[in-house]
Amino acid sequence: MRLTTMTDYALRLLMYVGQHPDRLCTIAEVAHAHQVSVAHLMKVTHQLGLAGWIETVRGKGGGMRLAHAPEAIGLGAVVRSVEPDFRLVECLDGGGHCRLQGGCRLAGIFSDALQDFLARLDRHTLADILPSGVPGFALPTLQKVS
Amino acid sequence: MRLTTMTDYALRLLMYVGQHPDRLCTIAEVAHAHQVSVAHLMKVTHQLGLAGWIETVRGKGGGMRLAHAPEAIGLGAVVRSVEPDFRLVECLDGGGHCRLQGGCRLAGIFSDALQDFLARLDRHTLADILPSGVPGFALPTLQKVS
Repeated sequence: MRLTTMTDYALRLLMYVGQHPDRLCTIAEVAHAHQVSVAHLMKVTHQLGLAGWIETVRGKGGGMRLAHAPEAIGLGAVVRSVEPDFRLVECLDGGGHCRLQGGCRLAGIFSDALQDFLARLDRHTLADILPSGVPGFALPTLQKVS
Repeated sequence: MRLTTMTDYALRLLMYVGQHPDRLCTIAEVAHAHQVSVAHLMKVTHQLGLAGWIETVRGKGGGMRLAHAPEAIGLGAVVRSVEPDFRLVECLDGGGHCRLQGGCRLAGIFSDALQDFLARLDRHTLADILPSGVPGFALPTLQKVS
């Protein structure tokens, strides 16, 4: 059972940007810090912008910053907005062709389990996972980003 | 967020076999009933056999049956035994290369959320999802299976 790489990167990007509240961050430096591709992060940034979690400033000297305080960015809400689907089993989205559709309780049980999963995430915000308070775990920042 | 097709099919196979406690079931008839490939179900059957959920009888007239009563087959246990991994985010298996590894609480929070998910499944058994009690939802059985 996995979330998509997109959601994984989205959380890391928010953590990086949240660690630098005093300035705009660029995709290039996040890519460097986390050693992931710029192309992936461009998609992630676009998605996070659409969902209202980050604000971007275009042009020279531009970049991104959080659109809300870390305490106001719920992890459950972020995951819901970035993850493409929560189709744990085929029947969960109603579009499957299971011969049992409507006749078994599997979808209901998995739906409940999913709600429990997301409810746990809803108890936490970005502020809870910012590593800035842990000595030695601040992410490296590029001195010069092209 | 998805489980693998393997887990989806494993649950459907157990449901089919559980609906026919009076005889052995074949892969061919489960494949026919659920309109999924025999090759996929062979892998699923092998896995369920290894995990001790089903017993198989080889040879002519052979097939499979549940190794335990449906009430003794926990959904959480089945999912844990069939799903290849629960690496929701890269850091959850400890093998990733996240620069924040050890420095943020993300893995702990997702691990808790996963436990909540599985704990909900642990409250249910195969008996809860057998559709036999719902009129009109018994799966079609082939009259003759080669």
